[in-house]
Amino acid sequence: MSKNPDGKQIKVGILGATGTVGQRFITLLAKHPWFTIHVLGASSRSAGKPYTLAVMWKQTTPIPSVVRDMIVRECHPQHFAECAIIFSGLDADAAGEIESAFRSADLAIFSNAKNYRRDPSVPLIVPLVNDSHLSIIPQQQALQNPPLKKGFIVTNANCSTTGYVIPLRALEKAFGPIESCLVTTMQAISGAGYPGVPGLDIIDNVVPYIGGEEEKMEWETLKILGGIADGDDGVKTFDMHARHPLRVSASCNRVPVIDGHTMCVSVRFQQRPPPSPQQVREALVAYTPVAQSIGCPSVPVHAIFVHEEPDRPQPRLDRYYQDGAGVSVGRVRQCPVLDIKFVVLANNVSIGAATSSIINAELAVLKGVVKVE
Amino acid sequence: MSKNPDGKQIKVGILGATGTVGQRFITLLAKHPWFTIHVLGASSRSAGKPYTLAVMWKQTTPIPSVVRDMIVRECHPQHFAECAIIFSGLDADAAGEIESAFRSADLAIFSNAKNYRRDPSVPLIVPLVNDSHLSIIPQQQALQNPPLKKGFIVTNANCSTTGYVIPLRALEKAFGPIESCLVTTMQAISGAGYPGVPGLDIIDNVVPYIGGEEEKMEWETLKILGGIADGDDGVKTFDMHARHPLRVSASCNRVPVIDGHTMCVSVRFQQRPPPSPQQVREALVAYTPVAQSIGCPSVPVHAIFVHEEPDRPQPRLDRYYQDGAGVSVGRVRQCPVLDIKFVVLANNVSIGAATSSIINAELAVLKGVVKVE
Amino acid sequence: MSKNPDGKQIKVGILGATGTVGQRFITLLAKHPWFTIHVLGASSRSAGKPYTLAVMWKQTTPIPSVVRDMIVRECHPQHFAECAIIFSGLDADAAGEIESAFRSADLAIFSNAKNYRRDPSVPLIVPLVNDSHLSIIPQQQALQNPPLKKGFIVTNANCSTTGYVIPLRALEKAFGPIESCLVTTMQAISGAGYPGVPGLDIIDNVVPYIGGEEEKMEWETLKILGGIADGDDGVKTFDMHARHPLRVSASCNRVPVIDGHTMCVSVRFQQRPPPSPQQVREALVAYTPVAQSIGCPSVPVHAIFVHEEPDRPQPRLDRYYQDGAGVSVGRVRQCPVLDIKFVVLANNVSIGAATSSIINAELAVLKGVVKVE
Amino acid sequence: MSKNPDGKQIKVGILGATGTVGQRFITLLAKHPWFTIHVLGASSRSAGKPYTLAVMWKQTTPIPSVVRDMIVRECHPQHFAECAIIFSGLDADAAGEIESAFRSADLAIFSNAKNYRRDPSVPLIVPLVNDSHLSIIPQQQALQNPPLKKGFIVTNANCSTTGYVIPLRALEKAFGPIESCLVTTMQAISGAGYPGVPGLDIIDNVVPYIGGEEEKMEWETLKILGGIADGDDGVKTFDMHARHPLRVSASCNRVPVIDGHTMCVSVRFQQRPPPSPQQVREALVAYTPVAQSIGCPSVPVHAIFVHEEPDRPQPRLDRYYQDGAGVSVGRVRQCPVLDIKFVVLANNVSIGAATSSIINAELAVLKGVVKVE
Repeated sequence: MSKNPDGKQIKVGILGATGTVGQRFITLLAKHPWFTIHVLGASSRSAGKPYTLAVMWKQTTPIPSVVRDMIVRECHPQHFAECAIIFSGLDADAAGEIESAFRSADLAIFSNAKNYRRDPSVPLIVPLVNDSHLSIIPQQQALQNPPLKKGFIVTNANCSTTGYVIPLRALEKAFGPIESCLVTTMQAISGAGYPGVPGLDIIDNVVPYIGGEEEKMEWETLKILGGIADGDDGVKTFDMHARHPLRVSASCNRVPVIDGHTMCVSVRFQQRPPPSPQQVREALVAYTPVAQSIGCPSVPVHAIFVHEEPDRPQPRLDRYYQDGAGVSVGRVRQCPVLDIKFVVLANNVSIGAATSSIINAELAVLKGVVKVE
Repeated sequence: MSKNPDGKQIKVGILGATGTVGQRFITLLAKHPWFTIHVLGASSRSAGKPYTLAVMWKQTTPIPSVVRDMIVRECHPQHFAECAIIFSGLDADAAGEIESAFRSADLAIFSNAKNYRRDPSVPLIVPLVNDSHLSIIPQQQALQNPPLKKGFIVTNANCSTTGYVIPLRALEKAFGPIESCLVTTMQAISGAGYPGVPGLDIIDNVVPYIGGEEEKMEWETLKILGGIADGDDGVKTFDMHARHPLRVSASCNRVPVIDGHTMCVSVRFQQRPPPSPQQVREALVAYTPVAQSIGCPSVPVHAIFVHEEPDRPQPRLDRYYQDGAGVSVGRVRQCPVLDIKFVVLANNVSIGAATSSIINAELAVLKGVVKVE
Repeated sequence: MSKNPDGKQIKVGILGATGTVGQRFITLLAKHPWFTIHVLGASSRSAGKPYTLAVMWKQTTPIPSVVRDMIVRECHPQHFAECAIIFSGLDADAAGEIESAFRSADLAIFSNAKNYRRDPSVPLIVPLVNDSHLSIIPQQQALQNPPLKKGFIVTNANCSTTGYVIPLRALEKAFGPIESCLVTTMQAISGAGYPGVPGLDIIDNVVPYIGGEEEKMEWETLKILGGIADGDDGVKTFDMHARHPLRVSASCNRVPVIDGHTMCVSVRFQQRPPPSPQQVREALVAYTPVAQSIGCPSVPVHAIFVHEEPDRPQPRLDRYYQDGAGVSVGRVRQCPVLDIKFVVLANNVSIGAATSSIINAELAVLKGVVKVE
Repeated sequence: MSKNPDGKQIKVGILGATGTVGQRFITLLAKHPWFTIHVLGASSRSAGKPYTLAVMWKQTTPIPSVVRDMIVRECHPQHFAECAIIFSGLDADAAGEIESAFRSADLAIFSNAKNYRRDPSVPLIVPLVNDSHLSIIPQQQALQNPPLKKGFIVTNANCSTTGYVIPLRALEKAFGPIESCLVTTMQAISGAGYPGVPGLDIIDNVVPYIGGEEEKMEWETLKILGGIADGDDGVKTFDMHARHPLRVSASCNRVPVIDGHTMCVSVRFQQRPPPSPQQVREALVAYTPVAQSIGCPSVPVHAIFVHEEPDRPQPRLDRYYQDGAGVSVGRVRQCPVLDIKFVVLANNVSIGAATSSIINAELAVLKGVVKVE
């Protein structure tokens, strides 16, 4: 079992522990080499009950024994004071206030909610892409009143954004700026939570619309793939890929798939002539994110697995490979309109949600951003 | 009941009458105001049997009484000599030889097969788009040896091509040439025929590949939307949209939907500035193909129905509107990379297959290309 | 168009007009030969809006023009005073009070809700089975305070019960009492209303449980197939099949099907030896309910359609036959444990819901139970 | 890692290695503590190719490295001479001749095919039920010409039979003979192999018929749950549960589920009064098959897992529990017609197919029926 820098078990709490993302956090953290589940938080309706009675468990593996009889708490900071890390799987309507209160209590939150993604001092981190954005944390802490020593919020991206920015980052690293990107998604229903999409709306159907999703993808991509600019006044700002303007057009669809977002992506590079499909395949295979090189335990062996078969990736066959922690790319070929097109598959409940938060926390531990006592 | 020009019932034959497309031909023709089903042709395995015993009927309405006891014939021209029109629902592996033999016997064939779509003297007609291409027929007849008086082959397009070229044609008519088009399809399994896609491959899945489909869409679009050029030698040729080169990039996916192809389309116009989304909506609503204005009985009231709701069209709700003879468009909006993007839904077994052949035949009757005695 | 006894258009109102059952009522009544939609009732949230803006329309045909601009009313009797018939598609949590208030206002209600099905003076009528139970209406009217002249409540059965009691009734009519019946259902998700069953719970899944459903089927069957006993005191009571006790065992399952409940049924007759499968088939084909013989316009030609193919009925192929107003039976064969087993398919949103209420109203008109002025 | 009696690796071969069952054998055997995959056999079309090129791999885990480059052989006994055990995943049309030839070559075959299930000297073994039937093997060997020393055929049951005979066996062990059993299945499409059920036939549908399946279930149940009778002539015969005649009625349906057969079962016991639901639950939980007590490594901890939640088992949530090697039972309750009813879920590709063959082989090793050198 891999060791964290200090060789200690790190106590973690989970907010929204009875929800879909919370259940996924529990499933993953129950077998984590560093993190120990210490507190489970949920709404007042669940508080006071043992977890087994509070939850409507929907995972395909049983409830881990370590949490079965744990008494669920309300989401108040005092119950989580001993936790070095808080994972939040809260719904957006609750996350805003609760996460703010937890940060004010000097707690470190890794959130899957959308509420603070656009905050200019909160990093939006896809762990296989832009771990460097953790450098904004001191500024975030300084801006609080009173300034914080340990507390902060780190968010991860929307499940549809996460999957395709990983290959985009690999391509920009190898070939320089991407100028435009057109992406059409075919998204799994688990991305909408539970109960989520009614069966009547999705069996034998496609819904060519997901409220707010296209705008999220188009905006988040710029924050994630952009850098951090240092202002003359010493203030850091996310540059939104501004030095090399990147135009993104997303079309988002819901399809009758349980887990796994499939996306058709076309890109145009600034560099002329653009790379060939074979060069693109090689760059994707070669991509090694920092999270791999510094040894985050939840990182997959293949950040990007490149398929050679003409009909892959497919969600049903490929979504659980490497526990869903990497992404699959296939059908890399020329695009007659832009330069290169390919298909991406990302497991929206793993790398698209809980796994991202967990690797973000691992990065923060290894980089000393989370203080482990 | 509408009258054809001569007020006569027109005898028609159906090739491949027991297959999926053949069954759809029968369902539609059994209630057609002009056409009378006169002969059913199928493989030697079915020949000699009454239709009811030869077919594994998969339509949701019962076998029409007019064909129930009709004895199925082999696909030899002598059985079809009395037919003014032959509809072909043959598979590609049989269509090449049989359709050629029928044409040599001076019969008029409207084919759903792909075999002759690329023939330089065979028109590839989407009836709500390029009926003008019927003008190549005399040249086709003259090229046969001996030259033909009545026989010819007209093909209709691949089901995925058909749906999206209708709005593209409406846009070119209103705003001039389209310069590039990027289309991502989510195609129904009925497009692959029967037995077609195994359930194990498609339930809870997306298959991001359909062999040959992308190439078909990219090529057929040019032939359909292009014009006919008159050479100095008096020879007509399809110009493949050459005067205004059009780049098309298609990404084709199979999704767990029974009927109805959904497509996300982005286009860039040559005209600068491009039309606004509202202008595009109005042009789509206003589009009136020739087949409507000259009174083809199977043409829908709305060639293009434009939805205002944000989440439409959807295959399960919209595919049977107008008996699937028109197309639905929704979500017309700006594309940050090209100019305009929108969603198209087309019923692949109706306007995408049998209905196209039937309207093509109606056009040929009204234009005098088919000689009705 | 068929005439009602008095040749007049009959004004009807619809309660719960924006819900799933209400939408089905509208679709069917918009083309009804006798009934004219006069008032639409819904919750206060919808009241005051034109129907088009109040409803989230989920039918596969467009909103009928006759109701598009009709202003939705609250479910208060005064708005419905001119209606000779009220159809109720209300949810169970609202139906109890509202239907009672409407009856008190001397209105005739045909309800699809479960609230009054077990009331000893309310008939539970499957229109192709037990129209004779309308004879309890005078007693129901007399029991109200003050007694009513025109008002009453008639309920129809649960969608799963409806389908299989039709063949059971045909069998009892031909062969005498059934002694025991074991039925296993595979029910469509539309039976649970909208939003109903989450997609995450039913795609690639079977849920072997529907709360309360088995108990409903076991109880309702007895009320429907039983007679009405006249007590010494002149009081009529439903005899619950008591003279020939009937044991029913139901196992109810939800399957990933949009519309159409499929059921595997085994029965044991009192008569020894029991009828043969061929005799059973003939009895099912021959069954002619009163609603057919007296000319209810919404009754199908075949109350029970008997399939000969070994693999029918199937929901996707057979559920819309005859507009879903009849039932399909197939695979009639010997049961090694009881006597005879077979498969039933019933369209749960048609004969299993709105169509039943409508035929019940037609029966009531033809029998003079509803007073048409 | 558990040890086999002799502590040696046992070489095994797989017939039909490229098919669906063969792929499952490979996935399971690649991590088996005793068995080493030594030869892969398939049709002449595949023979000579490395496995990776011969197979169209459809499992959700990658091809195990141990077989990736193994050259596929034709199914001739000489290639398998070094194998102590042969697993057969052959299709029925090939299994008859090939398995017979292998047995004649004195090889021990554990077959998933149906061909020899009804042979009076071939045991039909569900490993958690009737391992005692291995005692017929010496008679089978003696009947061959020339008599065999090591070769034999053991079959396992049809996937639908396997699941429900396990709880039936537990109930007979606890409460004595079952008199009648009525079972309705909702079977996954993977039970039909690949390509198997067309997507067009099963999406949004139920097919209430599987050719031959009901008869198989009704017959196999008697052979499996019956004993072996010793005739006066020393000849052993399967008694088909004859001392306590058992009537079985099966109704088999195909539903849109990838893996996992769900079954609704009602039973009547000979014992009066019958056991209560609670007694039945306890007997199911307590059931310990011989395969568990003697230490077969592939046996699950819970042969029968009994759910307390009202809506379980469900295929999507429960089919992969314990790697699909046990069965799940839920909803144990009284049956108003017979005595007790409940729901069974069995993973048809695991305990319903490959896992059964493997545990049968483990039993044969531990009992000395397979001679390990």
